[in-house]
Amino acid sequence: MSQLRDQLAAVVRDCYARGWSPATGGNYSALVTRDPLAFLLTPSGVQKGSVQAQDFLEVNAELSVLHGIGKPSAEGLLHTAIYETTSAGAVLHTHSVFNTLASVTSGDEFAISDFEMLKALEGNTTHEATEVIPVVANSQDMLGLSDEIRRILQKKPNCHAFLIRGHGLYTWGNDIIQAQRHLEALEFLFEVEVRRRALER
Amino acid sequence: MSQLRDQLAAVVRDCYARGWSPATGGNYSALVTRDPLAFLLTPSGVQKGSVQAQDFLEVNAELSVLHGIGKPSAEGLLHTAIYETTSAGAVLHTHSVFNTLASVTSGDEFAISDFEMLKALEGNTTHEATEVIPVVANSQDMLGLSDEIRRILQKKPNCHAFLIRGHGLYTWGNDIIQAQRHLEALEFLFEVEVRRRALER
Amino acid sequence: MSQLRDQLAAVVRDCYARGWSPATGGNYSALVTRDPLAFLLTPSGVQKGSVQAQDFLEVNAELSVLHGIGKPSAEGLLHTAIYETTSAGAVLHTHSVFNTLASVTSGDEFAISDFEMLKALEGNTTHEATEVIPVVANSQDMLGLSDEIRRILQKKPNCHAFLIRGHGLYTWGNDIIQAQRHLEALEFLFEVEVRRRALER
Amino acid sequence: MSQLRDQLAAVVRDCYARGWSPATGGNYSALVTRDPLAFLLTPSGVQKGSVQAQDFLEVNAELSVLHGIGKPSAEGLLHTAIYETTSAGAVLHTHSVFNTLASVTSGDEFAISDFEMLKALEGNTTHEATEVIPVVANSQDMLGLSDEIRRILQKKPNCHAFLIRGHGLYTWGNDIIQAQRHLEALEFLFEVEVRRRALER
Repeated sequence: MSQLRDQLAAVVRDCYARGWSPATGGNYSALVTRDPLAFLLTPSGVQKGSVQAQDFLEVNAELSVLHGIGKPSAEGLLHTAIYETTSAGAVLHTHSVFNTLASVTSGDEFAISDFEMLKALEGNTTHEATEVIPVVANSQDMLGLSDEIRRILQKKPNCHAFLIRGHGLYTWGNDIIQAQRHLEALEFLFEVEVRRRALER
Repeated sequence: MSQLRDQLAAVVRDCYARGWSPATGGNYSALVTRDPLAFLLTPSGVQKGSVQAQDFLEVNAELSVLHGIGKPSAEGLLHTAIYETTSAGAVLHTHSVFNTLASVTSGDEFAISDFEMLKALEGNTTHEATEVIPVVANSQDMLGLSDEIRRILQKKPNCHAFLIRGHGLYTWGNDIIQAQRHLEALEFLFEVEVRRRALER
Repeated sequence: MSQLRDQLAAVVRDCYARGWSPATGGNYSALVTRDPLAFLLTPSGVQKGSVQAQDFLEVNAELSVLHGIGKPSAEGLLHTAIYETTSAGAVLHTHSVFNTLASVTSGDEFAISDFEMLKALEGNTTHEATEVIPVVANSQDMLGLSDEIRRILQKKPNCHAFLIRGHGLYTWGNDIIQAQRHLEALEFLFEVEVRRRALER
Repeated sequence: MSQLRDQLAAVVRDCYARGWSPATGGNYSALVTRDPLAFLLTPSGVQKGSVQAQDFLEVNAELSVLHGIGKPSAEGLLHTAIYETTSAGAVLHTHSVFNTLASVTSGDEFAISDFEMLKALEGNTTHEATEVIPVVANSQDMLGLSDEIRRILQKKPNCHAFLIRGHGLYTWGNDIIQAQRHLEALEFLFEVEVRRRALER
């Protein structure tokens, strides 16, 4: 548990250092138990560059705080939705320049094809693949948004991520290491694909 | 007081490390007392990467040095204007590539809409907002420029920042932490919005 | 040998830190003996930011593991092809944003002319040169791909590198220091040339 | 003298860390005595990220080595030309992406106007200025190139820098601190101006 907290804190600080989590943006979690659901979650309104292992709140599906002191982010409900519809062991939500650009320059999905880096997304065994990343409208109604996410993830169980328009990326993995691999792959793919489209216009 | 100096020095060095304050550009302050006005200010002509807590000058509204040795930046008058017309507890002025690009590719304001990151600006509770950032012409007449800033801030009391064309960003917050959150949010928004406009042409 | 491992590990971590080897992408090797062929190789599926000297596998031409525990990357066969057709003492394969963009916005070669940086590629003595970098189609058939690479390198023995489309760069040098110089020069040239073409359209 | 070496070494390593001096590109010097001319110079073919104070060669106007072991860069003759025609106390030559782009997308000069950052160039007291940076053709004939540089600097004594096309920037200052300020200002201005031109097309 202490190791889980250390590992998650290192990922959070790394995301801040890369500029993927500016101005208290982004939130991050790791599964403690699936049944009943309990997970570690970054507290609301905190600068991510100095997050320490002991700062995470342990919360349940409804975001009641089980351990720790602080206010969980309302967006924690999206983490609940992901944990309840996938095999995720960790969920990472970043606000990078290029994931935001991908989200505001596309329709209801952002499709990426023919890059070797697609193989970094679990289950893809060839670059001759198209990863279709759902893009949902942003909303301040977290219950409504989490219901929409559940519907999408139930319909597309092989999905590795979704974008919220003008808001950022959610990705996950079976554990923190896999979630971080997915994050690095997707941030790379968003940058390459956004730049490629600009070059090819 | 010593803590305020340490906190401000850390922000200044961080801005330099990110490339937001090159070549002695930028200046930074934190409020000591509002009445009479006294604030810590970076000295003129100093490289920002090595600023230490003891390097700040304490100055009054007219930039007379109350404590410390050195020459306050003439732009300190803009800090005075901000402290006297807002509830600012800290003022950060950066010269980044993207805030400069925003300032030279727009008219008398730069408007940013529909990004979740707008919520990092104090008082915004939804992404369905438009932040209108005034852009004023650059000038070497600091008294004239500070008068113009006062007029703008009195007319637009909910403003979080302004740009000086070809010169950079001024933003502030009730304390250093809030000012830094505003800065990180705005630098992110300038980069995203400048790149988005280029992509959508 | 221990020095070779230390030197290679430092290069691998540096490539990760620069964003040239995200999400376990990229692989890296250094020659131990040429006859019979044996070389140090990064293990498959490992995040490159924390690679240590002892993590490299020593493998032979067919990628049988001679020393170390782990699974060599299937792409190791491309390293074998390079060692067997050139004087390479080290091979570096990166997945950067700009080498990927170069690979997907060109035909079967990417040509770069008239930059002083071309002189950093061994044997070039003037900027009045054109470096022609072969671009091969990506494939998951490593035996087929390595045969194609052999044919290309036999036909173009003065080649310093090749690109795999949508996949990344392979470059090499007589030793790790020269390979790293080639890598830094090529990553610079890809960024400059991709941006130059966009500016000149 | 030991302080001069330490100061110059710190600047060289910083330029490498910023990506302005990749693949052994760039060279750097600081004046020891003007009459007779003697200056510290980076040795040829060395990676700039690990340069230490003791690595600099002390050379005379003709690049004979007065102290130290190694081969001075042939481009040292351009440093001689600058020391003999200006009041320079330090000369910095970088190969950045944006200074290279500026050099290959312009005619025989690159002009920058109306940025506050122009005031970081010694002698400029207002942003209402135009800095005209000469762009000379690249050449491997260092005697010819240094003669051309002398002619330009004699005709334009208020010049702060020149570009060599496809090769990079030379800038200088009365001492290392001023030269570094000029470098940071110019690298910022090249990036802003190259991006601005792309946005305004």
